Amino acid sequence: MSSIGSARKPTIRDVAAVAGVSHGTVSRVINGGHWVSPEARAAVEEAIRTTGYTANHAARTLATGKSNSLAFLLTESQQLLFSDPTFALLLRGATAALAERSMTLVLLIADTAQEQLSVERYVSAGHVDGVLLVSSHASDSLLATLVATGVPTVCSGIPQQGDVVVPHVAIDEIEAARTMTSHLIERGHRRIALITGPLDTPGGRLRLEGFREELGDRFDPELVETGSYEAASGDAAMERLLERAPDIDAVFAASDVMAVGAIEALRRAGRRVPEDVAVAGFDDSGLAETHRPPLTTVRQPWSQISSTMVDMVLDIINGTPREPVVLPTSLVVRESA
Amino acid sequence: MSSIGSARKPTIRDVAAVAGVSHGTVSRVINGGHWVSPEARAAVEEAIRTTGYTANHAARTLATGKSNSLAFLLTESQQLLFSDPTFALLLRGATAALAERSMTLVLLIADTAQEQLSVERYVSAGHVDGVLLVSSHASDSLLATLVATGVPTVCSGIPQQGDVVVPHVAIDEIEAARTMTSHLIERGHRRIALITGPLDTPGGRLRLEGFREELGDRFDPELVETGSYEAASGDAAMERLLERAPDIDAVFAASDVMAVGAIEALRRAGRRVPEDVAVAGFDDSGLAETHRPPLTTVRQPWSQISSTMVDMVLDIINGTPREPVVLPTSLVVRESA
Repeated sequence: MSSIGSARKPTIRDVAAVAGVSHGTVSRVINGGHWVSPEARAAVEEAIRTTGYTANHAARTLATGKSNSLAFLLTESQQLLFSDPTFALLLRGATAALAERSMTLVLLIADTAQEQLSVERYVSAGHVDGVLLVSSHASDSLLATLVATGVPTVCSGIPQQGDVVVPHVAIDEIEAARTMTSHLIERGHRRIALITGPLDTPGGRLRLEGFREELGDRFDPELVETGSYEAASGDAAMERLLERAPDIDAVFAASDVMAVGAIEALRRAGRRVPEDVAVAGFDDSGLAETHRPPLTTVRQPWSQISSTMVDMVLDIINGTPREPVVLPTSLVVRESA
Repeated sequence: MSSIGSARKPTIRDVAAVAGVSHGTVSRVINGGHWVSPEARAAVEEAIRTTGYTANHAARTLATGKSNSLAFLLTESQQLLFSDPTFALLLRGATAALAERSMTLVLLIADTAQEQLSVERYVSAGHVDGVLLVSSHASDSLLATLVATGVPTVCSGIPQQGDVVVPHVAIDEIEAARTMTSHLIERGHRRIALITGPLDTPGGRLRLEGFREELGDRFDPELVETGSYEAASGDAAMERLLERAPDIDAVFAASDVMAVGAIEALRRAGRRVPEDVAVAGFDDSGLAETHRPPLTTVRQPWSQISSTMVDMVLDIINGTPREPVVLPTSLVVRESA
């Protein structure tokens, strides 16, 4: 038996050779067995078993257009995949939703321009039936490309795509940010800072907008710094804020991960949390609960986000148009603010 | 313009309709343009642009058998993907190796039996040209299935597959474990414990074997506990060891992650590391260096492992048989042992 190290997939030709029949006969057996003698059919079936031949389902894909899979596509660096718990939460939810349907979830990471091109080709080739686009900076041309190829695509968060409405599942970012800001005001804080996410993401620009709306006249742009969603960026942003405004008495970080980074900086500066400075996060991604002190945060409905995205893209694949969905968040008050 | 929410991919038929020509004419233009008038060709090319038509590459896949992609397949729970830094290291290396070749890396996670079946179908369908199987418990039938389908597959670590030699890239596990054990003996430790990985993995059974060989007559099975590679398992294993043998003066944990867990348990028990109990890990996965104290460990050549796996599977895809490769490890002595 040939070493597996050099095996190539058995083809119809191999089956024909082993069965001692023509290529056409083998095809006919595979496609239903018409106009084939019982002896030839038996020989072919035996040859299929011994060669281990399986029909190349690319043919089936052409016919049905279905690979029975969806892509979970991240346009962030792999680094963030492993350090930001929200991706793990969405991945888990998407996996569960697909498992219920016996479909395959294919994870694609497209950070650089080259990777995006690669992914665009892979997706256009029909290797997945649809795409769950899980993070998208406005500067990504990948979304525009997916839309142009007509591959059913659903985004998490509101994409910026000009006139084209891309199906998405989002939360009411502005409302959520207003709710947290209002909570901090009600707690008596007067000098409330904000650490935003990147401004080319929905979470970045819209949470800033909600913060600013809720504060109204009391909004002070000096109390705003922009982070990258990574913990170190929350730390660095907090340092810069403290330098400018040592009398800050509360910080709203636009993600739990950045809140944790901000708390590091506050501790180094001798501030106690929450006694000296209250710190609030966003996401309720798991680390908010395990952190000491447990973080006050905005809970995003993670498993509902992923299951809704999966339902939506499957509807679109099957020809049913879908409108965007906005899911509710909730304020989770713990100990940090 | 139709809402993208209900778009289906443009077909040759759409192009023909827009161009005002026959289906056959469009096909001919796509396949090289023979026997087509310049006017018809121009109309078709314009129609391809306006409809956004792209050739269904499933047809090309049938012809060439190439999807220009590889699967990075984990047969662990998603949880471990996000908590064990070695997967991130291998993924990064594989991604880099494929980027150099303009290929796509597709990440597949197949933990449950159902997910494994899903993945098997997806891979058999030709949606990837080969598989990098990154973790494999001996109990997985998935490897056997991939081998049976003939999809070029390369494993990390030595797979247990009976008579079939599956191409793999491994380290000399026994030798590496002997080297670390010898180091601990040379440091003067007399009651050396081992926290193994799962015994149905190469790292599990072979590192135990190396430990036992090096100790010879001094091997004491009471000083061995089995972990799962997760930090909490290292913690729990260390607790059980301390209960049985409070005089342990050194611990060799078969992964850095488990070493970190073991150190938690030691600290709770009032033991200082390394002053009271020396702790050694395995992998040098990043956290060994950042941990306090920095961990003494065995460095696996991560990027070389992934690039060698990629080279190997590409050779096999192209018909060149490959023998397994064993890569060297090195002892990294820091502060913990």
